[in-house]
Formats: sequence, structure tokens, C-alpha cells
Amino acid sequence: MKKTIDEQIKIISKGAADIISIDELKEKLIKSEKENKPLIIKLGLDPSAPDIHLGHAVVLRKIKQMQDLGHKAVILIGDFTGKIGDPTGKSKTRKPLTQEQVLENALTYQKQILKVLDKEKTEIKFNSEWLSKLSFEEVLKLAATTTVARMLERDDFKNRYSNNAPIGIHEFFYPLMQGYDSIKLKADIELGGTDQTFNILMGRTLQKNIEMEQQIAIFMPILEGLDGIEKMSKSLGNYIGVDEKAEVMFKKVMEVPDNLIIKYFELATDEHPDRIEEIKKELKEGKNPRDIKFQLAKIITNLYHTDKETKYAIDYYEQVFKQGSLPQIVPELTVSSECDTLKKVGTVLVKNRIIDSNNEFRRLVNQGGVQINNQKVTNFDNTQIENEDIIKIGKKRFVKIIKL
Amino acid sequence: MKKTIDEQIKIISKGAADIISIDELKEKLIKSEKENKPLIIKLGLDPSAPDIHLGHAVVLRKIKQMQDLGHKAVILIGDFTGKIGDPTGKSKTRKPLTQEQVLENALTYQKQILKVLDKEKTEIKFNSEWLSKLSFEEVLKLAATTTVARMLERDDFKNRYSNNAPIGIHEFFYPLMQGYDSIKLKADIELGGTDQTFNILMGRTLQKNIEMEQQIAIFMPILEGLDGIEKMSKSLGNYIGVDEKAEVMFKKVMEVPDNLIIKYFELATDEHPDRIEEIKKELKEGKNPRDIKFQLAKIITNLYHTDKETKYAIDYYEQVFKQGSLPQIVPELTVSSECDTLKKVGTVLVKNRIIDSNNEFRRLVNQGGVQINNQKVTNFDNTQIENEDIIKIGKKRFVKIIKL
Repeated sequence: MKKTIDEQIKIISKGAADIISIDELKEKLIKSEKENKPLIIKLGLDPSAPDIHLGHAVVLRKIKQMQDLGHKAVILIGDFTGKIGDPTGKSKTRKPLTQEQVLENALTYQKQILKVLDKEKTEIKFNSEWLSKLSFEEVLKLAATTTVARMLERDDFKNRYSNNAPIGIHEFFYPLMQGYDSIKLKADIELGGTDQTFNILMGRTLQKNIEMEQQIAIFMPILEGLDGIEKMSKSLGNYIGVDEKAEVMFKKVMEVPDNLIIKYFELATDEHPDRIEEIKKELKEGKNPRDIKFQLAKIITNLYHTDKETKYAIDYYEQVFKQGSLPQIVPELTVSSECDTLKKVGTVLVKNRIIDSNNEFRRLVNQGGVQINNQKVTNFDNTQIENEDIIKIGKKRFVKIIKL
Repeated sequence: MKKTIDEQIKIISKGAADIISIDELKEKLIKSEKENKPLIIKLGLDPSAPDIHLGHAVVLRKIKQMQDLGHKAVILIGDFTGKIGDPTGKSKTRKPLTQEQVLENALTYQKQILKVLDKEKTEIKFNSEWLSKLSFEEVLKLAATTTVARMLERDDFKNRYSNNAPIGIHEFFYPLMQGYDSIKLKADIELGGTDQTFNILMGRTLQKNIEMEQQIAIFMPILEGLDGIEKMSKSLGNYIGVDEKAEVMFKKVMEVPDNLIIKYFELATDEHPDRIEEIKKELKEGKNPRDIKFQLAKIITNLYHTDKETKYAIDYYEQVFKQGSLPQIVPELTVSSECDTLKKVGTVLVKNRIIDSNNEFRRLVNQGGVQINNQKVTNFDNTQIENEDIIKIGKKRFVKIIKL
């Protein structure tokens, strides 16, 4: 059943840090309904290193919620700047990406993004399609839309300018290009983190300049990682990747600090705002946060995995982490029939990233940290491995060997 | 006979406000002589309104002096920006020029420029040849060569920024384009007024960036106009146009204030520095400035007119302005045979810009300010005009009517 406009706004606003503006959003929603024309929701992504975690997924989930309301997403891969790399030629870390690398990254993105978004309502575009064709004359017209003073209002430019840190003139083009992309996509809504405020508002300015209806800016808050303090990030190790196995994801959500439970419900799930209000109430009334987090972990895991996988993750968690016993369900590791010693199994474990290196594995065996079928083993090189042996590595990692 | 390097530097330095740097200039001159390869001297010109006066000619004369030393001039018409006009679309006065207008202006320029420069050693180029072909990627690389802080060191940007006057981001490209032009021309020397310091040094920076030998910057001072105070400019009416008639030019030079005689010798003639030193000495020793100015007027007039025309200008000046009598030699005005009344002659006078309007002429007649063959006339509409009549208009203007 079609949702009312107010209900739509309620869902879209859930968890958002800011929306510019709610009134314009309402107008767009009314018009969209009247003309039976979905709104175009833009999300720009950097093509350099696609590996999506729940922090990135905050904007994607918000887009998914709008797709469920009938709207259309355009994921814009910013390949134009990626292909240029660092135009000063100074940075070794920002090497230009080849067309192949960009496409490869885009495919990885697509695979991960479609774990959140509705494939039928998602289009993927590359901004080199129009940016690489701009003439110098068009570039100058684009540059003429904005003053130096306005550009220096952007936080990072302002800070660098006042600290005498160099700002290359080409950098002024990044917000301009992002705004130009909004024109090209005829974007109705652009999403981004609060750090994207300047760039997304630039899209509004440029659209207004050519008398196009301005896009709505929806700013989503930063999601803190498992440490509860820092922004979720792969390099800080405080992240939950959308590609992680169900049992890993479930366990990680259970590690989220209690004070972030509601924020995770708002930003990392698609739960209805009314349901979240209820949970808030339950927490206030003294319900055990652990039980609520259990629900959260189940919901989040189930967003990225099948029901079966989610059930497995719950069972695994309860057995290993709550009871501390040997789990009834153990992940299986398929090996070739020649893989008959602990050392050879080690190589397969490294390949599957269950352990970091064979040396680490050897050390663990020597320290008595490895068991086979509940028996401690000490001979790394020569211990024989049979089909269906269960290997316990350290305190909590188990694998069942399945020989081909 | 080939001049020594020191003699060349002496001539090039004459009157210059600054040269960056003399040492590098010396190196270039030595190399040029050794390789028997003329230096490339760049002068950029705006294609909007070509009408050259002695103020503009200061740089041209300096180039001519270098051409006489064997070097080659490239006059660069900045048609690229001219064709774009005002990219903000706000200015009505900076309408984009069409290709035809640019070419027409360039022809007018060429005609005027070649009154100063040596045609055989002058090439005319248009920067749209390379600028219109730049891709966005190349534009970004160009922008990346310079920081915002460096750009805001330019006087006019600095002033506008500190006065909160808007600076469009496209404006940052004007110095960058000028610098890029120097790369494309492989310029050895660029000339300009002292107001061009930032832009010309940008050429050095960009050339250095790509490891090209840096151009020498020669800055010429501003030439004050006939009022002795303001910069020579058409709109202030204090100018001497290179296209003006010999007798007008001669008379105007005679109006130059005495304290500017030496500066005019330095900047508006090609006289050798040693000769100018002599003149300075003569002035100090009490020689009548009027006599020296008479020489100056003769030299300047002869730079732009034939010997015969110059002689005529001198005779005319001596008769009309020194003696106050009816001149023996009067400029001739050719009219059609039907042009038989004072009123009809007025129309031709307006057309030839001898008077501003027929109304002004009528007023002058009514006030008794017009004579025919030494007889005052008062009837504007019906006074008959015969072949060879000499008309005196006001105090000092004379024309002889020649009927076809």
C-alpha cells in the first residue's frame, strides 16, 4: 500500500543529521506522487578502494528505504578524478587508475552495494562520461559560478588556508565537479555524510544557476565503530564489513557499546521509526541491553545474509561465546586429499585467512594452543589429519576438515 | 655590424622599470649569438579594442629595438578569452566576440603594430589555437601548478579579497593561461607594463615546472599622457595615437610637460641611451626645453610618418602655432562637386572628425568663430563654398576645400 507523504518523510528523516530542506522534500514527494515519477537519488562514490562496511552502508540503507518508497537510486562512480590521479604529480599514493582498475573496482562496488540496494531501482553511472568531454570554455563557465571567498568557506579549505597549508587551484574543482554531476543526473536528492555538506550544497547552487529544480541534501551522521569512539573505519579495525560471514557479523554487533544501540538501529537497520521508539522505551524501562543487542545483531546479520545463515550465526554465537563449549556446528574447510598433515592444513588456513601465517600457526602449536578432536597436538610438521577432524585454533576458532 | 652583448643589454635596459633577470638575459643573448638563433620575444594583446597610442607603443618600441638587434617578435592575440566573453554572463560590456570580430580587430592591430615593428621579424599568433583544445584533465593539471595563496598574492586579487569584493574562480585562469601561452610559444622574453608583473612571472613558473628554460621578464614603466599626471589613455583624452596625422602628432608632442621630456625620449623613441644622456646634460646645462621638445616631436613624428609628412608637420606647426598667421600649407579636404554650402561642408567635416557635430559647427558659425578666406561668415545654411576656399574653424583649425 502506498505510504502517505508524512509517513514517507518520517521514514526518510529517521536518523538523518540534517535535511535541506524538509519543505522542498515534501514538495518533491507530492509532485513525484502526482506525476507518478520516482525521485532520482544520487550517491557519489570514490572509485579508489571499494570495501564497504556498516559505516558506508548508512547512506545506502537510507537510499534503500527510499527505494522501498518507490524512488530510484543512481550510484555515481567518480572515475574522472580517479583516472587523473594527483594532477600535481607529487603524490605517489594517488596514482592514476587505469580504465580496467576503475571497472574492476566498480564491479566490486556493485556487488557490495547490491547487498543493500534494490537492483531493479539502481543505476550505476561514471562521471567521466560527461566530465572528460568538457571543453576549457565550459570549465571556465563552471568556475565562474563560484567565488574564491565562497570556496574558502569550505571547512578543510578554510583550515588549510588559515594554517598556510597549500591548496592547489585544481582542488576548487572537486566540489564544482560534484555539483555538475548533480546537474547531469538531474538529481532530486543527494545523500552524504555531514563532511559532504559543502559539496552537496554546491550541487544545489549549480542547479539553481541554470534554473533547474534544486536537489534535496540529506546528511547522514557518522557511525562510530565497535570502540564506540572513532568513526567506523577499516584501518582502525573497528568495523563490520558487509561482506563478512554471518557468524563474524553477528558476534561483532554483539560487541557494539550499549550507548550506541539506538544509533545502530537508526543507521544500520531499516527498522521503522515507531519500532525504534518502542526499543528506546524498553531500554529506558530497564530491559537488558544485551537482549536488545541480540535483536540488533539478528536484524543486521539478516540484512546481509539468508535466514539460514543468520540462524547458523546465532547458534554458533550461543555455543561458542555464551557457553564456551565445542560448537555443534563448526565451519567446514574443504581440502584436497593430499592435505594430510597439520602443516599442509596450515597452508590452506592461511589461504582462507583463518590464520595470518604458517609461522604463527607453528608457534601456536608449539605453545599448546591447537587441539584436534579435543586433543592437544604439539608436532606441527608430522601430525596426521583425517577427514572430519575438528581443529580448534586458539580459544574460539574451529574448523572441520572435509577432504575431497 | 653586430653589437656586443654589453651594448645589447644597454639598449634593452634603456627605460625598463625592471628586468628579471639581467644575468639570465645575458646568458640567453650569448647563447643566441653562439647558436645563431634569434630570441623569441612575446607580447600578449587583448583583442577587444585595438587603437594604439604612444602608451601602448612603449613595449612595441622596446621590441623593435630588440628586432634591430636580430631577435624575433611574436604578437599573441588573446582571442580565446575574447571569444568567451564574460563567463558569468553578468557583464553586458564583455560580450563574446565572434571569429570575424577577432580577425577584424587583429587586422587593425597588425596594421598599427607594423607601424612600429619590423614586419619581417614579426609573427602574429592567436592563443585559441591551443587553449580551445585543452581537455578538462589538462586544465586541472594547469590549475594544479599553483596554489590559492600564491594566486591571492596578485595585487588586484589581494585587494579585492581583503575588500570582500568577489573574485570568480575562472579569473584565476587568466594568469595561468598567459603562462601557458609562454610555454606554447617557447618564449625567451616577455614584455609588459609593471601591472603585468604577476602574469609574466607566472610564465616563468610554468616553464620551470616543465623544465623549459625560463623566459626573461621585461617590465616597462607606464607612460604619462599629455596632462603629465595620468597614464596615457584614450578615454582621458591625454593621448597621442600612432594613427594620428603628422601635424596633430607633432603639435601634441610639443604639449608634453617639460619634466617628461627625458621619459618620452626613453620610452617613445628608439634613440640610443648615449644620445639620451647627452640630452639630459644639455637640459641640465640650461638649454631651452622647448628646443629639445622640438627635436623630440620631430623624432616621434618621423617614427610614424614619412620625411615629407614630418617636414609638413613642422612647417604647419611653425606657421600656425608659433606665428599665429594663416598657414601657407593647409590640410586639404576633398568634397564632391555638389557640396556647395557651408552646411554641406559641415557634414563632411563631421565625417572626417574635424568637428564633432553639425550642431557644434552651426553654433560656432553663429558665434562668429568661422571664416572663409579670412572673412567671417554668419549664414550657416546658405553660405556658398567654392573650390580652394580656405575655411578657418575656431582659432587653429584650417581646411582647404578641394572639389572633385
